[in-house]
Amino acid sequence: MNLGFGVVGTGAIGQEHMKRITRKLTGADIVAVTDVNQELAGNIVKELNLNASVHKDDTELINDPNVKAVLVTSWGPAHEGTVLKAIEAGKFVFVEKPLATTSEGCERIVTAEQEQGKRLVQVGFMRRYDSGYLQMKEAIDNNFIGEPLMVRCSHRNPEVGERYTTDMAILDTLIHEIDTLHWLVGDDYKSIQVTYPKKSSRALEHLKDPQIVTFETKSGIIMHAEIFVNCQFGYDIQCEVIGEEGVVKLPEVPSVGYRKDGVRGYKILQDWQHRFNDAFNNEFQDFIDSINQKGEPQGPSSWDGYIASVTGDAGVRAQTSEQVEVIELPDRPDFYKKTKLEESSL
Amino acid sequence: MNLGFGVVGTGAIGQEHMKRITRKLTGADIVAVTDVNQELAGNIVKELNLNASVHKDDTELINDPNVKAVLVTSWGPAHEGTVLKAIEAGKFVFVEKPLATTSEGCERIVTAEQEQGKRLVQVGFMRRYDSGYLQMKEAIDNNFIGEPLMVRCSHRNPEVGERYTTDMAILDTLIHEIDTLHWLVGDDYKSIQVTYPKKSSRALEHLKDPQIVTFETKSGIIMHAEIFVNCQFGYDIQCEVIGEEGVVKLPEVPSVGYRKDGVRGYKILQDWQHRFNDAFNNEFQDFIDSINQKGEPQGPSSWDGYIASVTGDAGVRAQTSEQVEVIELPDRPDFYKKTKLEESSL
Amino acid sequence: MNLGFGVVGTGAIGQEHMKRITRKLTGADIVAVTDVNQELAGNIVKELNLNASVHKDDTELINDPNVKAVLVTSWGPAHEGTVLKAIEAGKFVFVEKPLATTSEGCERIVTAEQEQGKRLVQVGFMRRYDSGYLQMKEAIDNNFIGEPLMVRCSHRNPEVGERYTTDMAILDTLIHEIDTLHWLVGDDYKSIQVTYPKKSSRALEHLKDPQIVTFETKSGIIMHAEIFVNCQFGYDIQCEVIGEEGVVKLPEVPSVGYRKDGVRGYKILQDWQHRFNDAFNNEFQDFIDSINQKGEPQGPSSWDGYIASVTGDAGVRAQTSEQVEVIELPDRPDFYKKTKLEESSL
Amino acid sequence: MNLGFGVVGTGAIGQEHMKRITRKLTGADIVAVTDVNQELAGNIVKELNLNASVHKDDTELINDPNVKAVLVTSWGPAHEGTVLKAIEAGKFVFVEKPLATTSEGCERIVTAEQEQGKRLVQVGFMRRYDSGYLQMKEAIDNNFIGEPLMVRCSHRNPEVGERYTTDMAILDTLIHEIDTLHWLVGDDYKSIQVTYPKKSSRALEHLKDPQIVTFETKSGIIMHAEIFVNCQFGYDIQCEVIGEEGVVKLPEVPSVGYRKDGVRGYKILQDWQHRFNDAFNNEFQDFIDSINQKGEPQGPSSWDGYIASVTGDAGVRAQTSEQVEVIELPDRPDFYKKTKLEESSL
Ligand SMILES: NC(=O)c1ccc[n+]([C@@H]2O[C@H](COP(=O)([O-])OP(=O)(O)OC[C@H]3O[C@@H](n4cnc5c(N)ncnc54)[C@H](O)[C@@H]3O)[C@@H](O)[C@H]2O)c1
Ligand SMILES: NC(=O)c1ccc[n+]([C@@H]2O[C@H](COP(=O)([O-])OP(=O)(O)OC[C@H]3O[C@@H](n4cnc5c(N)ncnc54)[C@H](O)[C@@H]3O)[C@@H](O)[C@H]2O)c1
Ligand SMILES: NC(=O)c1ccc[n+]([C@@H]2O[C@H](COP(=O)([O-])OP(=O)(O)OC[C@H]3O[C@@H](n4cnc5c(N)ncnc54)[C@H](O)[C@@H]3O)[C@@H](O)[C@H]2O)c1
Ligand SMILES: NC(=O)c1ccc[n+]([C@@H]2O[C@H](COP(=O)([O-])OP(=O)(O)OC[C@H]3O[C@@H](n4cnc5c(N)ncnc54)[C@H](O)[C@@H]3O)[C@@H](O)[C@H]2O)c1
Repeated sequence: MNLGFGVVGTGAIGQEHMKRITRKLTGADIVAVTDVNQELAGNIVKELNLNASVHKDDTELINDPNVKAVLVTSWGPAHEGTVLKAIEAGKFVFVEKPLATTSEGCERIVTAEQEQGKRLVQVGFMRRYDSGYLQMKEAIDNNFIGEPLMVRCSHRNPEVGERYTTDMAILDTLIHEIDTLHWLVGDDYKSIQVTYPKKSSRALEHLKDPQIVTFETKSGIIMHAEIFVNCQFGYDIQCEVIGEEGVVKLPEVPSVGYRKDGVRGYKILQDWQHRFNDAFNNEFQDFIDSINQKGEPQGPSSWDGYIASVTGDAGVRAQTSEQVEVIELPDRPDFYKKTKLEESSL
Repeated sequence: MNLGFGVVGTGAIGQEHMKRITRKLTGADIVAVTDVNQELAGNIVKELNLNASVHKDDTELINDPNVKAVLVTSWGPAHEGTVLKAIEAGKFVFVEKPLATTSEGCERIVTAEQEQGKRLVQVGFMRRYDSGYLQMKEAIDNNFIGEPLMVRCSHRNPEVGERYTTDMAILDTLIHEIDTLHWLVGDDYKSIQVTYPKKSSRALEHLKDPQIVTFETKSGIIMHAEIFVNCQFGYDIQCEVIGEEGVVKLPEVPSVGYRKDGVRGYKILQDWQHRFNDAFNNEFQDFIDSINQKGEPQGPSSWDGYIASVTGDAGVRAQTSEQVEVIELPDRPDFYKKTKLEESSL
Repeated sequence: MNLGFGVVGTGAIGQEHMKRITRKLTGADIVAVTDVNQELAGNIVKELNLNASVHKDDTELINDPNVKAVLVTSWGPAHEGTVLKAIEAGKFVFVEKPLATTSEGCERIVTAEQEQGKRLVQVGFMRRYDSGYLQMKEAIDNNFIGEPLMVRCSHRNPEVGERYTTDMAILDTLIHEIDTLHWLVGDDYKSIQVTYPKKSSRALEHLKDPQIVTFETKSGIIMHAEIFVNCQFGYDIQCEVIGEEGVVKLPEVPSVGYRKDGVRGYKILQDWQHRFNDAFNNEFQDFIDSINQKGEPQGPSSWDGYIASVTGDAGVRAQTSEQVEVIELPDRPDFYKKTKLEESSL
Repeated sequence: MNLGFGVVGTGAIGQEHMKRITRKLTGADIVAVTDVNQELAGNIVKELNLNASVHKDDTELINDPNVKAVLVTSWGPAHEGTVLKAIEAGKFVFVEKPLATTSEGCERIVTAEQEQGKRLVQVGFMRRYDSGYLQMKEAIDNNFIGEPLMVRCSHRNPEVGERYTTDMAILDTLIHEIDTLHWLVGDDYKSIQVTYPKKSSRALEHLKDPQIVTFETKSGIIMHAEIFVNCQFGYDIQCEVIGEEGVVKLPEVPSVGYRKDGVRGYKILQDWQHRFNDAFNNEFQDFIDSINQKGEPQGPSSWDGYIASVTGDAGVRAQTSEQVEVIELPDRPDFYKKTKLEESSL
């Protein structure tokens, strides 16, 4: 039987995921939706031609017996409340990042989930489902490059608008590297530091751009992550892991090679939607299949959401202090022991 | 409502497509199956946990009112009969290549489909749905390289078994280039010639391998296609179009780059299934969506199957004559006028 | 002691080589020059600040006792006469291609050189000294790709002027591939054929451009060479050899990679001077060193010039006949047995 | 007239340069040599068949009237003394790095050279003559990527022996990046920091490897340089400059591409001699030509040697303190104003 999704928040990415679930993936249906903008919610149901109830709020939606899994794509500050209610009701949850906007909020979710007794929550860190990262993880796990020692990565965006603030470089942009890098090398963060290179004249006055973030892991791996959201030339995600015996590097996005006007070139993508479209599809299909077949999700857990939140908070502190900030995390509970997806690649 | 598929031939690729339709794609179900090996057909239904009738033959399956589209994945010689019966019954057909094993058979299908009044048939030429070829077609259609003048391509396989014969290089291997190349440049073939380079000592005694095929199109484009099915090193599809103002080239399959043991390298795929997996998915999703939304398929038509057959026959004659063989094709009927998919890329 | 060069023909490439010898290389001096344009010859000597006699013609120059090696960079039709006189005088000769403008002329040189008793002549086929081709040759000679079976190459120029005629595509452009390809695979040509793809609208009316040349070697290797002298985008030399167990390909010219304006790109060279500058240097240094150290040149011999001439003539016949033209060459005399340079790479 | 070189120190690189000057380059001769190992000096003269006096020490050699330029390739600690004597005698000096082993020593040279009145000294920082770095510098100087904001580079060696100590990572390995990076972006260093990632198990016990060095320049550019001298896989120099509008990256060393055994690959060089052979040639030819034609060298000056020394010392302090160490440099004297080579690329 298909997994019945109830969607909380039918905005931009909510709609993307609804189309994905109904048009691209298999094994799930949208059976209910809600949004503080009730009209929007109703319109989407009509537009996508769904057989789905429109509920007045998340509580009502969660109580709908047809809803087996809650998709949380509301604004960040609303995530925690909905996730906690869904856990209490024993429903599965797919929550777009962030899991909660505070580390305390994440802790409350982690505690509630453990008390409730089994894994219910998956957080929307889709990069773990990107074929390039998966190939890198497989190579690292197979000891192809020996022990990882250093990581270098870049997160580049062509440009950002006025509402993008300096802390968002950590909390909205770097958040994906935060989740991916420790997973990739199978290690935990010990500290984070933020350095500000010379500012790009293309960045608006209030924004520090670019920024360089340095992580150190418990085993001593040093990771440099460049965040550059006004790089002008395209959406460009780079990642390279240097190990004792070799190096692996994320592939470039495949693009027709051309020769013209004195240039041998390849087009660069301009947006993250195209870059990670397959990853989003794989992520949701895995969430659906894992629940349908094994009774629980196996992707990034609320513990991963908690790690990201604690690390992100330390990162924001580091933006102000310009010092090395320690990342304090309790030991990973047995409940959140590594799943197959984390142990070996898809 | 979902499109109900009846599958004729539940062998290797039949099963692949059944899994694809039920597990990866949306908008369709498998409602009926048949195979001369009835036990096999029954087992697959059980294994995939399908709610599908097992019919005794294609006639009974076609008459099943739940079957709206027939998926023909039986052996080549059986294709024509099933397709003709499906047309007569007014059902949609997705037929794996070849459409029929003779040009006369293809003609009979083309005639039947036209008499019946609307497009029902799509042939399984999945490369037109590969993102690399689509990018190339888009560039060519947008006049990015000016008029195409020359094409170079390679179809390389690591190795083939005893049952692979010299004519299969044309009819089973090159068949995909035959379909793709004329579509890519928007032109028709005028002639074909086959040349045999020095034979690889890795090829079995009865097989000529490699072979080089030269096409000339009506407007004068020269195309060289290398077929090399014992190349040892991998499954490798290359294609390059040289135009008046530039060149476009199929991207390499994206693969993690590594540095190790004195080599900067990338792994090469070993099989076509991985190479064209996304293309197969896109192909079927387009078939399903086009029927569900527009009432007819828009992918490669029976006319394309007919072109491939006539061209393939000329190719086999050229293998023996070692001369330039003319390809005689009637003008494309209005009925098979270019569809949107052919006119512009996806 | 430095090798004393006498230069016959102080035009474009003559001057290039004079600068090369005096400013970049070691072990040689320009001691004499001549040109039908005596004023030009005199001016160059002044401009380059050389201590060199200006002679009234090649005969006088060859008789100058300071001249140990004659550099022939006059117009093609004048080459044969000068080379024969130099051989008679027992002087070394470096002659820019062509060795002579007719096969008979080349034969006369080959005969004269053998009668005279030792190797004196080197022909200016500089690609054999290009690091990319040398790496390819080394790989092939080391059996890295098994027996070579097929070769694909391109010779592309941005554009040509009015004086460039259809036969020059063979005699001036392809001539370098003619010399390089048989050397690369260690085989002799059996036949040549020329095919004309659709003509580029950028080519002037009198010129057939592009052209595709097909060689077959005695052992059965098939080689396709594209000549496209109005390709617009740059000077672009491609070469790929496909063997029984693998493929080797000429490297792209190294160029700084950039990301800008939505493109990941590399600049393409626009002229052959930059492309083969290092090869020209290596070629001359090897000529000088071989004579100074071993008493004779080891680079491309007059036999190679003769092969190129016979093959070029057959190519021009093939341009008219549009048929496969047989290339008839006597067996290579012992005198022209493979030198070290031909047997193993530099 | 040829420039007469006197060589002080006929060890490994001394001999390399002597061969270079006599066999590859033009405009100079070796007229005198000396080495504390007199026998070695004598043997080399014989071996290379030079017409050169063997002197008992550097003083005698410098006083030899045939010596116009002194090539200092003795051990590091001996450099300062020889350079000072040569300046006093008004002779040109090409000194391999380091200019002197202490910053005070470099200061003494800088002072002596200025007092003496014209540029006499060039330091052996050959990377400025590497075609890849020159292309990058040209792009940056032409504002192709806008203002440079960040730099990332790697200096990787397959392995090092027992005598290689932690401080040599700065003073012998990074020294080339120290010189190149500030030149590339046209800025001066403000500070340096050293971080130690997890140690490679392939590094000997006494050695910290890899190390990451972070520079900040006066205008705020952040540069990360990885030093990894036991990386196993090859000699690998990477450099990437990220600017406001684009990125430029050092090209990979050109190498024949192959497909074999499931890999699409390129060989990686194993040693610096091959990597920078052309740069060494260009460097010396430029030294010779500049003196012969303009009466003074234009390459890296003793001021550049002084910058490298002060920066290297700060780097060694930073290795111990693990803190940000300030780099204090007086303003560049007019005497050492940028030369053409520094202002625009070759
Ligand atoms: N994984 C990724 O790469 C990625 C990408 C984009 C967005 N996101 C995350 O997805 C979330 C949504 O982003 P978006 O771009 O779709 O925003 P959006 O503003 O377009 O949509 C959010 C929607 O939620 C509704 N909403 C807000 N509070 C609600 C509540 N309490 N109950 C019900 N509905 C509520 C709003 O009315 C709005 O329609 C954010 O948390 C964002 O961080 C993740
Ligand atoms: N597009 C591609 O790249 C591609 C790839 C592989 C195969 N194919 C095509 O797919 C077809 C099937 O290939 P396969 O590899 O799956 O072969 P297969 O032998 O594995 O399967 C064929 C099945 O058809 C059944 N069958 C044969 N005749 C039948 C009939 N008259 N009625 C019902 N069932 C019948 C057989 O019992 C068998 O189970 C072939 O035509 C082949 O050319 C296309
Ligand atoms: N290896 C290569 O890639 C390459 C490249 C360019 C040219 N070439 C060859 O070099 C030769 C010269 O080409 P160019 O471009 O320098 O031509 P050019 O016209 O610039 O120079 C030729 C010079 O030779 C002089 N000359 C002609 N006949 C003479 C004679 N009998 N005695 C003395 N001087 C005579 C002319 O006055 C002229 O100065 C040609 O044979 C050409 O094919 C080879
Ligand atoms: N630019 C580069 O990349 C590069 C590369 C290698 C070496 N170097 C530099 O070159 C220098 C030499 O290195 P090497 O590898 O040739 O060392 P080496 O030990 O092989 O040679 C040094 C020679 O100098 C002689 N010598 C020492 N002190 C002397 C003195 N006071 N007078 C005369 N001779 C003396 C020694 O006997 C020896 O023969 C070093 O400073 C090194 O840092 C630079």
